[in-house]
Amino acid sequence: MAKVLTKKEEDFSQWYQDLVINADLAEYSPIKGCMIIKPYGYSLWEKIQQTLDKMFKETGHSNAYFPLFIPKSFFEKEAKHVEGFAKECAIVTHYRLKTDEINKKLLIDNDAKLEEELIIRPTSETIIWNTYRNWIKSYRDLPILINQWANVVRWEMRTRLFLRTTEFLWQEGHTAHATREEALEEAIKMLNIYAEFAEKYLAIPVVKGVKTPSERFAGADETFTIEALMQDGKALQAGTSHFLGQNFAKAFDVKFLNKKGELEYVWATSWGVSTRLIGALILTHSDNNGLVLPPAIAPINIVIIPIYKSDDQKTKVLEKCNEIYLELKNLGYSIKFDDRDNYTPGWKFNQYELQGIPIRLAFGPTDLVNNTIEVTRRDTLQKETISLSELLPKIKILLQDIQNNIFNKAKKFKEENTFIVNDFEEFKKKIENGGFFLAHWDGTPETEEILKNETKATIRCIPLETKEEEGFCMISKKKSKKRVLIARAY
Amino acid sequence: MAKVLTKKEEDFSQWYQDLVINADLAEYSPIKGCMIIKPYGYSLWEKIQQTLDKMFKETGHSNAYFPLFIPKSFFEKEAKHVEGFAKECAIVTHYRLKTDEINKKLLIDNDAKLEEELIIRPTSETIIWNTYRNWIKSYRDLPILINQWANVVRWEMRTRLFLRTTEFLWQEGHTAHATREEALEEAIKMLNIYAEFAEKYLAIPVVKGVKTPSERFAGADETFTIEALMQDGKALQAGTSHFLGQNFAKAFDVKFLNKKGELEYVWATSWGVSTRLIGALILTHSDNNGLVLPPAIAPINIVIIPIYKSDDQKTKVLEKCNEIYLELKNLGYSIKFDDRDNYTPGWKFNQYELQGIPIRLAFGPTDLVNNTIEVTRRDTLQKETISLSELLPKIKILLQDIQNNIFNKAKKFKEENTFIVNDFEEFKKKIENGGFFLAHWDGTPETEEILKNETKATIRCIPLETKEEEGFCMISKKKSKKRVLIARAY
Repeated sequence: MAKVLTKKEEDFSQWYQDLVINADLAEYSPIKGCMIIKPYGYSLWEKIQQTLDKMFKETGHSNAYFPLFIPKSFFEKEAKHVEGFAKECAIVTHYRLKTDEINKKLLIDNDAKLEEELIIRPTSETIIWNTYRNWIKSYRDLPILINQWANVVRWEMRTRLFLRTTEFLWQEGHTAHATREEALEEAIKMLNIYAEFAEKYLAIPVVKGVKTPSERFAGADETFTIEALMQDGKALQAGTSHFLGQNFAKAFDVKFLNKKGELEYVWATSWGVSTRLIGALILTHSDNNGLVLPPAIAPINIVIIPIYKSDDQKTKVLEKCNEIYLELKNLGYSIKFDDRDNYTPGWKFNQYELQGIPIRLAFGPTDLVNNTIEVTRRDTLQKETISLSELLPKIKILLQDIQNNIFNKAKKFKEENTFIVNDFEEFKKKIENGGFFLAHWDGTPETEEILKNETKATIRCIPLETKEEEGFCMISKKKSKKRVLIARAY
Repeated sequence: MAKVLTKKEEDFSQWYQDLVINADLAEYSPIKGCMIIKPYGYSLWEKIQQTLDKMFKETGHSNAYFPLFIPKSFFEKEAKHVEGFAKECAIVTHYRLKTDEINKKLLIDNDAKLEEELIIRPTSETIIWNTYRNWIKSYRDLPILINQWANVVRWEMRTRLFLRTTEFLWQEGHTAHATREEALEEAIKMLNIYAEFAEKYLAIPVVKGVKTPSERFAGADETFTIEALMQDGKALQAGTSHFLGQNFAKAFDVKFLNKKGELEYVWATSWGVSTRLIGALILTHSDNNGLVLPPAIAPINIVIIPIYKSDDQKTKVLEKCNEIYLELKNLGYSIKFDDRDNYTPGWKFNQYELQGIPIRLAFGPTDLVNNTIEVTRRDTLQKETISLSELLPKIKILLQDIQNNIFNKAKKFKEENTFIVNDFEEFKKKIENGGFFLAHWDGTPETEEILKNETKATIRCIPLETKEEEGFCMISKKKSKKRVLIARAY
């Protein structure tokens, strides 16, 4: 039986959850807020990892690995950082269990209490800057350009598969620099890499910007962000890059001898994206038939499905399908040949639509006679029967076309749902339908607070690429020089 | 200053630690028993990961991800499993910190106590088999062939970098099968993959065998192992593959409808290797100058070092070096061009010897005149000046030759240090010098206990590839049909 999703027009949130579960991407585990990433979902993460890892290495970064545990006292060292994370962290207090001899249940062994509690890393700035103190003596040791692929834990109260989970997988870059300018440049460089990755591979158009002080990463002097617009009109923060100033260097006493022979605190950045990107991918492109994947990130680009009735047909059809499969595979395409005979072609069609495979090839007895093949693209669901001799050039063009089409569709959606507003009452009405809003803001946290309390929307960022423009704050009517991006967000 | 290692003949253990630290592989963190894997050490792990991951995928396995946390009650379900792991696990008891308003220190928030404690996974059989219960209904859902790359925590009292650390990185395969035979076949298949990987890539000769009941993985019916011999004569268990029978299926009630329509418990395997392999790699091949890496696993295969005095020489030498670098790089070799001028060539020579780069190329003013280049192989430290026109064929041959030579050297060492013994007193003397010993054993845990208590040696495995042979147990003098492999071990 093909699985049927809730229609997204009926219940967007349920549609999302149905899709994640039915497309075999992930499911909840018995541990509150922790997910199990199933093989198909994990293969998406692997594609994301491979692509980003290559981009990081091409820009001079190396991977390393730091401990999962952070001593509690490390958190106390950076005041803002602790505020941001202390309230949602998993705490290890003991290192041994014992068996209750009476009922055979396991108990904590109170003789094995840790002297100092350990926090499961919610992010690794503290343990890493404590380490950098020993690695950095002089300007010759700089820059340090390190990335880590790891799991982190933030004890979230309200969770959703991929979008917000207690444990999640991510990468966190942590760099150390001799000058303010160089660190700032690095933070912006990584923001640009995230934006390029989102647009070129995930086909998600993004707005690059800088967060307001109240939305900054706990411990950052400046947080850069890429913000994307989901199909329900909500914003999703897809990646952040932080200019940390000298905050962590001061907290962990990391100084270096500069070229002039003076001791100076080191400048820092950190930047990360997570399995949340899979949520963004789903929410941006998918439809009521399931996932729609851009070819550049799809783990499988083409699936070939044989169609036959008689045994005689079966032999001939499978043989020809296998030939086509091998030819495409040898050309480097990621292709799957689904020759299982305990599922019908119809079931398979639905399944691969659900899983978002960009191109479906179907080949049956008529095609044998006519030397043809049916080609269906997932993004538009358009079908076409073409001559076998046209298949190779067709596929090459189609994959590029699907990638472009998915991106352009998302871009058009974003543009059509980005509104310029000047009046708060007008905004309050419009925000109910979602979208990105460009409005003037007076720059104060008080006004931000009013916005949030009255509309549940937040300033997503101050866009980097919009022009200065004289105006008046939508809420306070005070003078403003630039519009900010406002939306309700995931 | 070039770093100098303790000589391994003087203090093997110190030599190992010096090497790990000075070659920039890893260092201890402030968290007891947890290490920081530095970029160069991590690049070795990345090569291991990439190579094994490919082998796993080629044999039909997919990656997935399961939670870091395991509810305490899951451990209680498999009696032997809990015995094996309960005494060395990190326990999460709370999920929030609060600030002590008086001294501004962080405290555990006692209002945020977990109802059920969570264990940081020491291995994932329990959480995975709890999940498989929902995934498996009929024989059509089998086999499940899943692998996970993850961090695990075992609260070890005595730790050593890479060899035994509280947190370590590993892969754990967890498969589910319809029949005993198929599961057993899978366990052996993965053992063979580990052995092939160890010998072909790491150049570490191994003995494949099965563990005695007392040395089995906690919860396994049979544990297969690859055992390697380190240069100090101690054995190192380099990978294990477990046939779990129906133990976890019974503990988590995982049944399937077989082809006859009957409900049956599912059969299982699990198998893993870890960052310990890096320790094995070091202990097998390295020398007093540092690491010796087999080209098949070296992150960098060739380094090119320019030599010059005058500025005029510098320009010409760097230009030619860059030409050679690009040519080799374009041919797909992993090559590094170290053109830094704040380090002397001598310092660089030492550094790359320490880091085990298989081939060092040095090019200076004389080479400019003569059209030559100096080629040094790391394994034998042999130097040769050859004509530039011979470089390409030379490198191709040399890399293969280094790989073979490193493996053959280790194999010869293993063979020369594998002894047949029949007398316990003779064994007691010989074991002091280390080595692998093949001796008869009566098959009882009592005799194993005597062996361990009197000699600190253990039965590493019952080798799969040795012949049956009538004999008498070295200790009890009872009848025995096969020799077992005995050694002191890491």
